[in-house]
Amino acid sequence: MTDLKQQALDYHALPTPGKISIELTTPAETSKDLALAYSPGVAEPVREIAENPDDVYKYTAKGNTVAVITNGTAILGLGNLGPMASKPVMEGKALLFKRFAGIDSFDIEVKHKTVEDFVSTVANIADSFGGINLEDIKAPECFEIERALIERCKVPVFHDDQHGTAIVTAAGMLNALDIQGKQLKHANIVCMGAGAAAIACMELLIKCGAQREKIYMLDRKGVIHTRRDDLNEYKKLFANNTDKRTLDDVIDGADVFVGVSGPDLLSAEQLAMMAPNPVVFACSNPDPEIKPELALATRDDVIMATGRSDYPNQVNNVLCFPFIFRGALDVRSRAINDEMKVAAVHAIRELAKEPVPAEVLKASGDESLEFGRDYIIPKPMDTRLCGRVAKAVAQAAVDSGVAALELPENYMN
Amino acid sequence: MTDLKQQALDYHALPTPGKISIELTTPAETSKDLALAYSPGVAEPVREIAENPDDVYKYTAKGNTVAVITNGTAILGLGNLGPMASKPVMEGKALLFKRFAGIDSFDIEVKHKTVEDFVSTVANIADSFGGINLEDIKAPECFEIERALIERCKVPVFHDDQHGTAIVTAAGMLNALDIQGKQLKHANIVCMGAGAAAIACMELLIKCGAQREKIYMLDRKGVIHTRRDDLNEYKKLFANNTDKRTLDDVIDGADVFVGVSGPDLLSAEQLAMMAPNPVVFACSNPDPEIKPELALATRDDVIMATGRSDYPNQVNNVLCFPFIFRGALDVRSRAINDEMKVAAVHAIRELAKEPVPAEVLKASGDESLEFGRDYIIPKPMDTRLCGRVAKAVAQAAVDSGVAALELPENYMN
Repeated sequence: MTDLKQQALDYHALPTPGKISIELTTPAETSKDLALAYSPGVAEPVREIAENPDDVYKYTAKGNTVAVITNGTAILGLGNLGPMASKPVMEGKALLFKRFAGIDSFDIEVKHKTVEDFVSTVANIADSFGGINLEDIKAPECFEIERALIERCKVPVFHDDQHGTAIVTAAGMLNALDIQGKQLKHANIVCMGAGAAAIACMELLIKCGAQREKIYMLDRKGVIHTRRDDLNEYKKLFANNTDKRTLDDVIDGADVFVGVSGPDLLSAEQLAMMAPNPVVFACSNPDPEIKPELALATRDDVIMATGRSDYPNQVNNVLCFPFIFRGALDVRSRAINDEMKVAAVHAIRELAKEPVPAEVLKASGDESLEFGRDYIIPKPMDTRLCGRVAKAVAQAAVDSGVAALELPENYMN
Repeated sequence: MTDLKQQALDYHALPTPGKISIELTTPAETSKDLALAYSPGVAEPVREIAENPDDVYKYTAKGNTVAVITNGTAILGLGNLGPMASKPVMEGKALLFKRFAGIDSFDIEVKHKTVEDFVSTVANIADSFGGINLEDIKAPECFEIERALIERCKVPVFHDDQHGTAIVTAAGMLNALDIQGKQLKHANIVCMGAGAAAIACMELLIKCGAQREKIYMLDRKGVIHTRRDDLNEYKKLFANNTDKRTLDDVIDGADVFVGVSGPDLLSAEQLAMMAPNPVVFACSNPDPEIKPELALATRDDVIMATGRSDYPNQVNNVLCFPFIFRGALDVRSRAINDEMKVAAVHAIRELAKEPVPAEVLKASGDESLEFGRDYIIPKPMDTRLCGRVAKAVAQAAVDSGVAALELPENYMN
């Protein structure tokens, strides 16, 4: 057993199994405390909520609670291992919500037969929470599930594997293209992979200015084009009217490569065929579509990002999802809409352009960080993220008319 | 607004809305911590659980987690106010689980159409937890719901309003009858009320020795008898072949009155008609079926219990449910069966016979407590309860073959 493996197992088993527990936020020492916390005192908030449903936000933890919900069909890069095996990941997500944004989150693993069965289970319990974070649900079911839940739930529903990845990718991509002197609207884009994250990334890049017809998406069978008859409705949106069939065909002259597929699928030769000053996001984890060492040895005009913390420019959802929900909860948004996602993209990309304070450098373990080819995305340990992203997201919720509350005065200042 | 009302509302609103939050049990300060808590380290416990499903108890919080689940159809004594209004009660229950037994618990309020809809929602999410505590679900649906969930879930399912009340009632009743020099098997019993708690109380008293034909149960229409054609299948089990029709008819000569109905339904005259040395459990909350002052002014040979903390002999579920689950979780029981419930009854009643340590007196705010007519049930603040009840329940689970683990060595010693 490797050292890292044993460390990871010990971390989960000790001091008690798992990573999260409940703590009480009110006193519960004396009989009098308990008479307020439970019968007879608890009848008072019950009556208030029965009369005025919004008071549930005043007297219960609902407004700061997000459920992390999965069916375990697409766990990390490990695949469909079922709901129980996903539990450490979901508890990990809950840990990140608390650690980075002070959100109380717990995990629910759903066993189900049909998509409708999953949707109605989650819709039936959704009111218990301030928001729903869907996680590790495989495509294409995840699209239908998210769409149905958004329709049926009064609280925001967000599939992080899609939109978290998309937001951080878009933020980094806009900065990388800036540095390379290119514009998204003119970029030829190759997207290797056609799963949940790939489709969400491309949709969000389009919302940020990319042109759909300049995107070539590839799945296991090659380029997705209009003459294929094996495409689900989500892939169909990216079917290109083209004679190109392989990665070799489309990589030639491409400005951007986004990989959300598998290890070593982009060769040095293919990288060499890209246009001058290309951008390569090789996000397959833990092994990227092309290793940064190989990429930079092949050509030094490339800007690289990966999903790994041990290389520069890590695309990491934690830059985004805790703060998206922080902002959404704080103005009691009923949705996380495109305006809010785009606001998060710009908040994240702008932060990377600012000088990095000493304490952030220390927390990140970096000697220096300066906006440029090796620093296009903020670091996960950057404590400024919460304020910036949450505020931008909350403001976008208010501006787009999905928030029940105004921004609190001096919010996140 | 009364002082108590304002205190109860403030207690729930401050310092933050609600009573529970999440805390992390593992370090999450450095990038290295996060690499163990989440990607890439988290893949290790995921793989272990995928290979060996029982490892979910080793690497996640499942084994110490109980979901408190309701549909809000029978909230306290307040009735059917819907799932959202019940949330303060459910969070209160979670608070009690943590405070008294160290169990991590959170609340889920279910919106549903049919009973089957509720059952399948809960069954679909049940594996996320070590156990399910059902709460504040109205009769008769609660019986069908509990039965179906017990069948479909691999973890213990317990409807506290039924069985928690029944266990504490049976413990106190056995002690009261002892003191009165009576035996349960010979007792004539009147049960005022025919809801979830009433039916569960009578069923458990029967398991403890009471005779079904000596029980008269009354609902709003009077005595439940074999010639009524308006009885659901649960009430039918208590249909008595009798000509008696009213409380006056059945209270005459009764040894025991159990009230789980409403305020002031037992008059002084009716109490006077009971047999010598009667036992009256007037558990309607906050206003009992007969006030203790009135009862004791009417006759001094009565032993009284109520649901209130400001009179002696409080029937309070908190004496039981946290520790039932503590014991069940600690030996990974797949059920909470009758053997475990009866074991809890005896553990609770025996504890009342023991001398009360000074620190328990202090916590309870009592000067002295000695087994007798004013002290037939332990106090909620008695810290010995957890060890005694959990151990008895865990042992009963092992002995009755529903536990996956043996009792840990020196368990609760």
